[in-house]
Amino acid sequence: MEYQHIRTELADNILTVTLNRPDRMNAFTLRMKDELVHVFGEADRDNQVRAVVVTGAGRAFCAGMEMQPEDGGHVFGYDDAEGEEPPVGTIRDSGGEVSLAIFNCRKPVIGALNGAAVGVGITMTLPMDFRLAAEGAKIGFVFTQRGLTPEACSTWFLPRAVGMQKALEWVYSGDIFLAEEGLEAGLFRSLHGKEEVLDAALALARKLIAKSSPVSVALAKQMLWRNPTFDHPMQAHAVESRMIYRANEFWDGKDGFTAFLEKRDPVFDTDLNHVPAEFNFWPEPPLK
Amino acid sequence: MEYQHIRTELADNILTVTLNRPDRMNAFTLRMKDELVHVFGEADRDNQVRAVVVTGAGRAFCAGMEMQPEDGGHVFGYDDAEGEEPPVGTIRDSGGEVSLAIFNCRKPVIGALNGAAVGVGITMTLPMDFRLAAEGAKIGFVFTQRGLTPEACSTWFLPRAVGMQKALEWVYSGDIFLAEEGLEAGLFRSLHGKEEVLDAALALARKLIAKSSPVSVALAKQMLWRNPTFDHPMQAHAVESRMIYRANEFWDGKDGFTAFLEKRDPVFDTDLNHVPAEFNFWPEPPLK
Amino acid sequence: MEYQHIRTELADNILTVTLNRPDRMNAFTLRMKDELVHVFGEADRDNQVRAVVVTGAGRAFCAGMEMQPEDGGHVFGYDDAEGEEPPVGTIRDSGGEVSLAIFNCRKPVIGALNGAAVGVGITMTLPMDFRLAAEGAKIGFVFTQRGLTPEACSTWFLPRAVGMQKALEWVYSGDIFLAEEGLEAGLFRSLHGKEEVLDAALALARKLIAKSSPVSVALAKQMLWRNPTFDHPMQAHAVESRMIYRANEFWDGKDGFTAFLEKRDPVFDTDLNHVPAEFNFWPEPPLK
Repeated sequence: MEYQHIRTELADNILTVTLNRPDRMNAFTLRMKDELVHVFGEADRDNQVRAVVVTGAGRAFCAGMEMQPEDGGHVFGYDDAEGEEPPVGTIRDSGGEVSLAIFNCRKPVIGALNGAAVGVGITMTLPMDFRLAAEGAKIGFVFTQRGLTPEACSTWFLPRAVGMQKALEWVYSGDIFLAEEGLEAGLFRSLHGKEEVLDAALALARKLIAKSSPVSVALAKQMLWRNPTFDHPMQAHAVESRMIYRANEFWDGKDGFTAFLEKRDPVFDTDLNHVPAEFNFWPEPPLK
Repeated sequence: MEYQHIRTELADNILTVTLNRPDRMNAFTLRMKDELVHVFGEADRDNQVRAVVVTGAGRAFCAGMEMQPEDGGHVFGYDDAEGEEPPVGTIRDSGGEVSLAIFNCRKPVIGALNGAAVGVGITMTLPMDFRLAAEGAKIGFVFTQRGLTPEACSTWFLPRAVGMQKALEWVYSGDIFLAEEGLEAGLFRSLHGKEEVLDAALALARKLIAKSSPVSVALAKQMLWRNPTFDHPMQAHAVESRMIYRANEFWDGKDGFTAFLEKRDPVFDTDLNHVPAEFNFWPEPPLK
Repeated sequence: MEYQHIRTELADNILTVTLNRPDRMNAFTLRMKDELVHVFGEADRDNQVRAVVVTGAGRAFCAGMEMQPEDGGHVFGYDDAEGEEPPVGTIRDSGGEVSLAIFNCRKPVIGALNGAAVGVGITMTLPMDFRLAAEGAKIGFVFTQRGLTPEACSTWFLPRAVGMQKALEWVYSGDIFLAEEGLEAGLFRSLHGKEEVLDAALALARKLIAKSSPVSVALAKQMLWRNPTFDHPMQAHAVESRMIYRANEFWDGKDGFTAFLEKRDPVFDTDLNHVPAEFNFWPEPPLK
């Protein structure tokens, strides 16, 4: 796929994805959606990619939905939808498609919010593992001020990240707030000067992959996001028991302890794509 | 219903509900329970009500259960309960009935805790969307010191609001603590001088409704409380996809984007009571 | 059972459990696992035990898995496991067995981390109700650096305790960090001088049991950990309604209100072991 609304760069096993419509403050298009879904699928499969960083070209991160699409089509892509209850596939929220692609990618994903992030510009960052932002960046869950409702799976992710009181205040009012308020609430991991956000995200990515097993990280990502949804820790115990057995006896754990005792770097060469499917993601429920 | 233990005032689309037994520090009665359940049902249906603020008359917010009921009946209303396992309806926890009425009200609800909140006086505020409190107010989850167990759905709400370590310390010990400790833990959104709490709550209410669509707010309330209980973000995606489609094509979203592009105030005139039931609350599971 | 790798002391109704292999920084053995599972089962049943404090002998709390077992057996006890999918019982994660024993104990459990806590040394503290730590103590979820995956039910507990961004950063990188960073993130309740951690934990234990009903505390522990996993507060309401009825009419609540009105200490003499099983823990799901 040839990217038009994003661009990518792979260096030191870190894939940087840049939202690339700077003259439109990187407003989100259906084309951008398709490209993001594609690039996260590729990043998931490509063993050269150990982590993904997402940033924006120019002064904004993403100003939200492009309200004046170049092709003159429907803003949300509802051209084919008819009536109050059209087929589910026809009315899929485009921000949610991106969020699920990010969530399904088994590599750490870091948002480097270099500037304003509004509407889908902020909600699509919620499934990312980490969000770093520029000091003073304007943030807004503006949906209620447009007569809309929150999307991009934000109703699942946002209360987890910042608690109910903050999530409700931001969403009810629809007001713009500053990144500093987001840091205080736990929305952001850290703030940085506008010119330093991307470097800070790359430094974090390097730290995450420096000494860790790629397979361990991929499996840990899924376990930490998924297992807390279980009703009882026993269910996590069942998953963990199988996982650590396999890791220790068959995967990168085979050399991990030995290398530690021998005070040398371990050999981590298990291919993530050869890990059996049942360990390599839980099945996504159908859209219905 | 003629209110005796609460009073209400509607101004600027904000309904203020005042616990009104100041000579008894607004201690909670079964009559007060019935009145609160009634008023939140009315507030839910009344399009004139955009937000609800709950406060107390006099110096306390609510000192907890009235232990010496005027009518000489059972404190908890167990007059008709017999044996260890009477019918469920007979032994319904009265604080929980209030909590569920607040939870079911599709308008933002703000607690303005003007003074002490103890026992059911604090637990019934947990389903409120926001809690503002007076500096120095005494707070206590005192149940274990009375040989009782926490109620008013607090075992569902409290760990969500403040995390396990704080919830367990407050509940195990049953000790009184100050509002400042509650602020630190995330129990309260903000603290204010005793005379300013109500004004601060009204100002927050005005901010929430100033520019937002009433239907968007009502739907967002349900989505943000409910969707995080799903096992997977895909389920939130299914709800959000349908919701934003309807909002954009049939409800207040019809004018939202247009008004934004035309730099004018949007027309938000969708009647919440005309939104189809399947979007207008998820079914409450039966009490069993 | 005669303890070899731990020791215990009961004083003032508080059971102190000390990990006791100081020459090995209290590294975790399969023997230690068996002893911990046993002691938490005993603490659960023994009415003399109102709270449990867990600490380590010498300068560390627990340096992680013992990688050179004295008996020359398999580090993880997989001696009998064969092939990629041996019987579940054979490959049970030993840290998880301890975590579940702690979780099932109906008394408050307080970790007094007197020094370094690494690998299973930190993950087994996550099901404890409170974690107090020594200033400057080294903490590490080091699994990815050994080619392994997180265990001891940590994938269930850790995101609840510190949120996703912190949990993911610690687990992905596998790096060592200081207790101060853990305090900031909510992993620890409080930090203390190395020599004061145990005393602070004992003081907290005394506070928790000073005025509270043992039965109320035991039931509250289970309600606060369990009920937030329900989909809807109505389900918590059903549990709470039955619980407070029984407590008030048949258990320690019988004297609680009366004593409060009479300004005297209440008589709390209900035997936790006589509370019917359906109130006295929810069934643990099978390991499968």
